[in-house]
Amino acid sequence: MNINENFLKLEDSYLFSTIAKKVTKYQNENPDKKIIRLGIGDVTKPIVPAVINAMNKAINEMGTAEGFRGYGPEQGYVFLRNKIVENDYQNLGIEADEIFVSDGAKCDCGNIVDIMGNDNKIAITNPVYPVYVDTNVMAGRKENIIYLDALEENNFIPQLPDQKVDIIYLCFPNNPTGVGITRKELKRFVDYAKENKAIIFYDAAYEAFITEEDIPHSIYEIEGAKDVAIEFKSFSKSAGFTGLRCAYVVVPKSVFGYDKQGEKVSLNKLWNRRTTTKFNGVSYVIQRAAEATYSEEGKIQLKNNIDYYLENASIIKDGLKNIGFTVYGGVNSPYIWLKTPNNMKSWDFFDLLLEKADVVGTPGVGFGSCGEFFFRLTAFGTKENSLEAIDRIEKANIL
Amino acid sequence: MNINENFLKLEDSYLFSTIAKKVTKYQNENPDKKIIRLGIGDVTKPIVPAVINAMNKAINEMGTAEGFRGYGPEQGYVFLRNKIVENDYQNLGIEADEIFVSDGAKCDCGNIVDIMGNDNKIAITNPVYPVYVDTNVMAGRKENIIYLDALEENNFIPQLPDQKVDIIYLCFPNNPTGVGITRKELKRFVDYAKENKAIIFYDAAYEAFITEEDIPHSIYEIEGAKDVAIEFKSFSKSAGFTGLRCAYVVVPKSVFGYDKQGEKVSLNKLWNRRTTTKFNGVSYVIQRAAEATYSEEGKIQLKNNIDYYLENASIIKDGLKNIGFTVYGGVNSPYIWLKTPNNMKSWDFFDLLLEKADVVGTPGVGFGSCGEFFFRLTAFGTKENSLEAIDRIEKANIL
Repeated sequence: MNINENFLKLEDSYLFSTIAKKVTKYQNENPDKKIIRLGIGDVTKPIVPAVINAMNKAINEMGTAEGFRGYGPEQGYVFLRNKIVENDYQNLGIEADEIFVSDGAKCDCGNIVDIMGNDNKIAITNPVYPVYVDTNVMAGRKENIIYLDALEENNFIPQLPDQKVDIIYLCFPNNPTGVGITRKELKRFVDYAKENKAIIFYDAAYEAFITEEDIPHSIYEIEGAKDVAIEFKSFSKSAGFTGLRCAYVVVPKSVFGYDKQGEKVSLNKLWNRRTTTKFNGVSYVIQRAAEATYSEEGKIQLKNNIDYYLENASIIKDGLKNIGFTVYGGVNSPYIWLKTPNNMKSWDFFDLLLEKADVVGTPGVGFGSCGEFFFRLTAFGTKENSLEAIDRIEKANIL
Repeated sequence: MNINENFLKLEDSYLFSTIAKKVTKYQNENPDKKIIRLGIGDVTKPIVPAVINAMNKAINEMGTAEGFRGYGPEQGYVFLRNKIVENDYQNLGIEADEIFVSDGAKCDCGNIVDIMGNDNKIAITNPVYPVYVDTNVMAGRKENIIYLDALEENNFIPQLPDQKVDIIYLCFPNNPTGVGITRKELKRFVDYAKENKAIIFYDAAYEAFITEEDIPHSIYEIEGAKDVAIEFKSFSKSAGFTGLRCAYVVVPKSVFGYDKQGEKVSLNKLWNRRTTTKFNGVSYVIQRAAEATYSEEGKIQLKNNIDYYLENASIIKDGLKNIGFTVYGGVNSPYIWLKTPNNMKSWDFFDLLLEKADVVGTPGVGFGSCGEFFFRLTAFGTKENSLEAIDRIEKANIL
């Protein structure tokens, strides 16, 4: 068998394993130090009671002859797709058959490459979540990628592509920079896509953290987006489902790609074919869990968690500002994007922060070259640790 | 955006939707008839108590600060991978880092195409589970597929390819024919693969139904297979997980593909890279459910379910034989492969069986041209319905 040679073009991703190794070494050398980890973007609050109850109920159903459910619809149960439409797309004109429930936004962002032709030009922001790049490299499109730099002078909102591209990956609120995009700024991308017959893959995994009025919760709030955008959403960060696994993709029936004859082809139909052929639906129990996030009780409980993380974000952001750092994000996002002092390289800052304050973060360069001289901290820890981290950074006198 | 044109080469799969439409029409015209459905290969017995208990426990853990788990390892938790090795690969030399836990064998069989080069020649049996063909067509390999006919005169075990191929998809016990393959017969394929630097993708989803001594439960029982085979296993049929979603792939570290320079490349490493890039692990709760299938209690409870289905299989098989039908399968498999009488086309037999006996099955031609003149019945119904179906078929006098 011949292998897919494109895998050999992938750069090895050592980011989190290098961090883990450095931290382990430091801890071994300093066994009495209590390290605070604000590096990895994983939630820490337990699953809320409304979801726990719904899951226990669903499981017990599955143990009875009447309640047992085998194969479900590959696209997700109607009970969940309807709840998603009613709650997340009210008045946006999205319909249940445009929602595809999955086991994770990482899978969706990765699998979407299946429906793309090989000759598309792809724009990806820099810095970025590495999955967009890696999955396109694996599919043989390494040479088709152009990067849109997210720079401090533009508040990390990239310029439009300076050449014609066919696909644009956007993630807002952004990982890693933590910044949101305004409706006006996003409109420029939608207009570009319309003019260039391009499609926007819009990753809205952090939507639940939006606090400001002018930041859209969905790209479909933008006029015309329903003709040019596919949206990725996840229960991972909004409901703490990183260990339960549930997400969804929105593929409006009004979004079209083109075949070689220039004929329009429905991406909803293509994605449906991909889904029915290579996927068998999300666990019934997990879909009931996702449904429960939309119950009155569930909404209140989840809002408390989000508020808790957002409070951490402002503790970290304001704390760092007061110390004198330049910081971004943290208002519509659980991520704080910190400018390293004195043009320090981001891995050097990592070492410094670990040694002087026993605090772990993520070097910005790990997300792409434009992340150099920046550093990501997350608000997913505890309030106590967020406060103490700031206290330690202040006392460490590293500015 | 340009679409993946290969999707346009897919044949629309109308098999189960056509069946559903015909059945609905018949039921509407005959509202008082009680139709027995022996068509779709989905289980019906509820999840066993040992699994239910493990899931309730896991969920309640997730609701506590101490027990909560976020992102798990993409390849699956070690607790489950170890249990799989100890129970399913005892003495076969398979190690935990050769097991990749997933949310379904359909996904695995479909996703495996990602690590294959485009220029491989692929052998697929006929009749067959349509996913092997469709996922290769979607990846641009429609012209690379050759078919291995599974014919009655060879007891549905295909001949070796008569040309050099790089990949062979095998499924045993087979869907749809229900036949098992002996160690001796399987050894021929393993030897062929060794000689031709080919890889066998071995789908063992129905392994739990094996009753005969000379039928291997894993391809790794065959000498040399660890160098040439990837095995797909699922909890769907063995533990009734069609609605819970858990499966796994075995990719031994001794299996290699080749790059363009003819250098060996580890498929375990490639699949690991694919898994970490495009997948985020199976729900913790579901992995605990899968683990519980290996508990003493779980094993006993699941064996009862399998025995129940196998009893249905022999009721159907022996019943049809006594009536005078020619039947295959049903001994190491939940599927009975029935030869239609008087060379009747399989869709004609479908209509006849529905009209004369109110029994639904699956026309063999739906699985490929070599399935014409055959018909699949499944043992996944109730014992009462299996008995009554035979009774009705006998009284219908359709031979």
